[in-house]
Amino acid sequence: MTPDPTLEAASTLRHRHLLGLADYDADELRLILQTARAFRDVLDRPIKRVPSLRGVTCCNLFFENSTRTRLSFELAEKRLSADVMNFSASNSSVSKGETLKDTARNIEAMKVDLAVIRHRSAGAAHFLTRCIEGVVVNAGDGQHEHPTQALLDALTISNLHVPGRSALDAYDFRGLNVTILGDIAHSRVARSNVYGLTALGARVTLCGPRTMMPVDLEAALDGRDVVVTDRLDEALDGCDVAMALRIQLERQGDEIGLTPSLREYHTLYGIRPEHLEASPDLWVMHPGPVNRGVELAGEVVDSDRSVILDQVTNGVAVRMAVLYLLAGADTFTDADAGS
Amino acid sequence: MTPDPTLEAASTLRHRHLLGLADYDADELRLILQTARAFRDVLDRPIKRVPSLRGVTCCNLFFENSTRTRLSFELAEKRLSADVMNFSASNSSVSKGETLKDTARNIEAMKVDLAVIRHRSAGAAHFLTRCIEGVVVNAGDGQHEHPTQALLDALTISNLHVPGRSALDAYDFRGLNVTILGDIAHSRVARSNVYGLTALGARVTLCGPRTMMPVDLEAALDGRDVVVTDRLDEALDGCDVAMALRIQLERQGDEIGLTPSLREYHTLYGIRPEHLEASPDLWVMHPGPVNRGVELAGEVVDSDRSVILDQVTNGVAVRMAVLYLLAGADTFTDADAGS
Amino acid sequence: MTPDPTLEAASTLRHRHLLGLADYDADELRLILQTARAFRDVLDRPIKRVPSLRGVTCCNLFFENSTRTRLSFELAEKRLSADVMNFSASNSSVSKGETLKDTARNIEAMKVDLAVIRHRSAGAAHFLTRCIEGVVVNAGDGQHEHPTQALLDALTISNLHVPGRSALDAYDFRGLNVTILGDIAHSRVARSNVYGLTALGARVTLCGPRTMMPVDLEAALDGRDVVVTDRLDEALDGCDVAMALRIQLERQGDEIGLTPSLREYHTLYGIRPEHLEASPDLWVMHPGPVNRGVELAGEVVDSDRSVILDQVTNGVAVRMAVLYLLAGADTFTDADAGS
Repeated sequence: MTPDPTLEAASTLRHRHLLGLADYDADELRLILQTARAFRDVLDRPIKRVPSLRGVTCCNLFFENSTRTRLSFELAEKRLSADVMNFSASNSSVSKGETLKDTARNIEAMKVDLAVIRHRSAGAAHFLTRCIEGVVVNAGDGQHEHPTQALLDALTISNLHVPGRSALDAYDFRGLNVTILGDIAHSRVARSNVYGLTALGARVTLCGPRTMMPVDLEAALDGRDVVVTDRLDEALDGCDVAMALRIQLERQGDEIGLTPSLREYHTLYGIRPEHLEASPDLWVMHPGPVNRGVELAGEVVDSDRSVILDQVTNGVAVRMAVLYLLAGADTFTDADAGS
Repeated sequence: MTPDPTLEAASTLRHRHLLGLADYDADELRLILQTARAFRDVLDRPIKRVPSLRGVTCCNLFFENSTRTRLSFELAEKRLSADVMNFSASNSSVSKGETLKDTARNIEAMKVDLAVIRHRSAGAAHFLTRCIEGVVVNAGDGQHEHPTQALLDALTISNLHVPGRSALDAYDFRGLNVTILGDIAHSRVARSNVYGLTALGARVTLCGPRTMMPVDLEAALDGRDVVVTDRLDEALDGCDVAMALRIQLERQGDEIGLTPSLREYHTLYGIRPEHLEASPDLWVMHPGPVNRGVELAGEVVDSDRSVILDQVTNGVAVRMAVLYLLAGADTFTDADAGS
Repeated sequence: MTPDPTLEAASTLRHRHLLGLADYDADELRLILQTARAFRDVLDRPIKRVPSLRGVTCCNLFFENSTRTRLSFELAEKRLSADVMNFSASNSSVSKGETLKDTARNIEAMKVDLAVIRHRSAGAAHFLTRCIEGVVVNAGDGQHEHPTQALLDALTISNLHVPGRSALDAYDFRGLNVTILGDIAHSRVARSNVYGLTALGARVTLCGPRTMMPVDLEAALDGRDVVVTDRLDEALDGCDVAMALRIQLERQGDEIGLTPSLREYHTLYGIRPEHLEASPDLWVMHPGPVNRGVELAGEVVDSDRSVILDQVTNGVAVRMAVLYLLAGADTFTDADAGS
């Protein structure tokens, strides 16, 4: 009996860049996740550094502040022995497309092999691939995609014990029910997760107030088959994994009134201890940082059903895998990564 | 004739963290100082890097600005070949205990082995040990302790020529007279030095205006036996080493009137050329940066009796020793550190 | 037949520091350029790191903001495997000579081997050599010099195809016509280029509005023989390479009225497509970042006659060469650099 060929991982990525998960197929996702699992093991060793990207230069172009994501990429790069350059422009006037082009071309001229970009404009990462010859990794572009977040979420889910299911080692998510909760309309995390999770076979439910749902959902979600509800009880019924999105308090200022109040949001959509009691096998995830008492009750954050810190650890492993596969794979043998 | 066993250094530290010197005994202090002396030799070589912490990740958590201390730790980490992460939060709203906990746990989840923390709240380093499993090194917590400063001061003192004394190689400070000058009440440097110096056997005199002395001195100094005076001439009489503390001009704003004026402070407590003339064997120390003309006259700073720059060099060596002993010692043989 | 001895490069630099090109002779310049060419080849390899400065500590002291120059030096240091320390003081009150001295001596006490300094005061790099014992590299001091910029310009020029000339491999610029355009009076780039280009034998023309010419040109240019004009057509007649200087929009505020308007500047001194048509062999350079539509028309920036991005790449190579020759040459054999 031969294994189901759709569960085989590819041996190399077909893409040169990681701009989003919309057009990554299940084979490519599985290759990244398998490679990430090997790097995850490296992170548990006393010596967490491998030589895979020695002499390769990575530049982190952060046009939007994000200490955690930048640190995670920077650690991934250093643990692969890459040379790391940080370019932070959140406070500068670098905002127009042409200026991004000039900035990017200048940085590439210093012989950068791979650029990680975070930008407030959707499409910035894609635009960057037209400016430079190096590899581009999207670390979040506006309300478009945040692919490494969805990959680390998938790696985290693959390690969870879910009753009635066999091991998820093959990264086959068929039969798994995942709920994404919160401001779906404005979330690049939700979007990338819908692509990644559905590609791996999971059934995805989106839940949030109607004001936080995309107006044209089908277009927004690239026609993926998802369930939509504005009722939390419906969303958690039969759910294996609940992924709460961060309410962007700093962005709410722009569009006041989206949600009547944070207290009401917590009452209607926050995950509280009573939900964990009602669903004894439910796992809780969050991309962080959590607003305690808003998306999740503090007790939920600190409970053993929360895997938020696993997500953080897996973030470094997934980023090592992506950087290795995009910038280093052809230089080294499979043995380098231990995969 | 066997050596005095109280002068033998321990072979490993009994503590897992370095939170303060209050409960480090003389054996442990001597082990750190001996190890630091070996690293001090490394710093004089053309190639100043050793592989002791290769693949180990150190995170510098600076919730309070301090360019010099951060650079010193960062250099120590890099020269031990550690991977270095900098997290600076001086301008953020990260201030409450719980938020420090969430920040710390997130950073640890990225698989950090050792955290160096500087924080304006006394007890922050101790609190951190309850949040994370990794090793914690206190780089200054409020008005509590600044242990690596006191260790570098002890290493500097051990190299000084003091008349009528044999070599201080055994880090036996019995018979040595050290005066600490300035705002004793608010100084974590004074506190750590009192603990370290008395543990090694030195006689310590504290000198400053009464407004700058702790209200309950015995409690503040953990019952160590010290001499207190508000007269500079008394404090310098028979003194081998005078350690002037930095007047925190930026903190004085909060409690205006502590000292009538900087000029008067200099007249009453500043070390001036006449003091060096009167005490031809007196050594002068300062944790830096010096306010010239306040704690010390400019001529005193620049004289050959000032060992302020030796303190800076020894700071890197002491920090290498602390990091090595806490995060790397069990992985490597003694030969690695040359000790 | 023996080669012209004036075209031989020195085998070591006679200078301990790189403060400016005023007193570097052709032999020394050629040694730097030859070494830089070897490092330029390293930058085109998949693995761009060499071990030349392993265990050597470089400190970048930037008292004036300059993301690009700092990144270029930092990359050069990392690719030579040096340990890198960044000290940025643009927002601090560090400005007076004495404070610079104390800062520098403290940093040196941490055992820094080489300091790169950028400062708004002319002479700051020279002053630094009197404060510390380590090697000093000037990364731009006020309106004085910016020697690594002129060196990267010379390396870029040496790679250009210029009709009627033999290869420039020997870095013999005799017969070459270079025009420098813009605010000559306030430009450290212009000054360093005049020194470097004339030392290598080029004929230099300075062109700009009279308000942007030094009042006492001969003194300013150390008596080098240059041509001066305020007419762009004259300056481009017979010119092989036109080097446009950046109009410092942020500095113009101080001296409003220097140039009537940016539009008029572009009309009178900007290089536009018609100039490329009129001079089909003209090469265009700019130290960056370009104000498009001011010094250069956007089409000129993007044309194949612009070598602005080559300048950026050569900047890293030239800085590697300078650091290697000043801080690493005596430790390693010539083979290390491949030169």
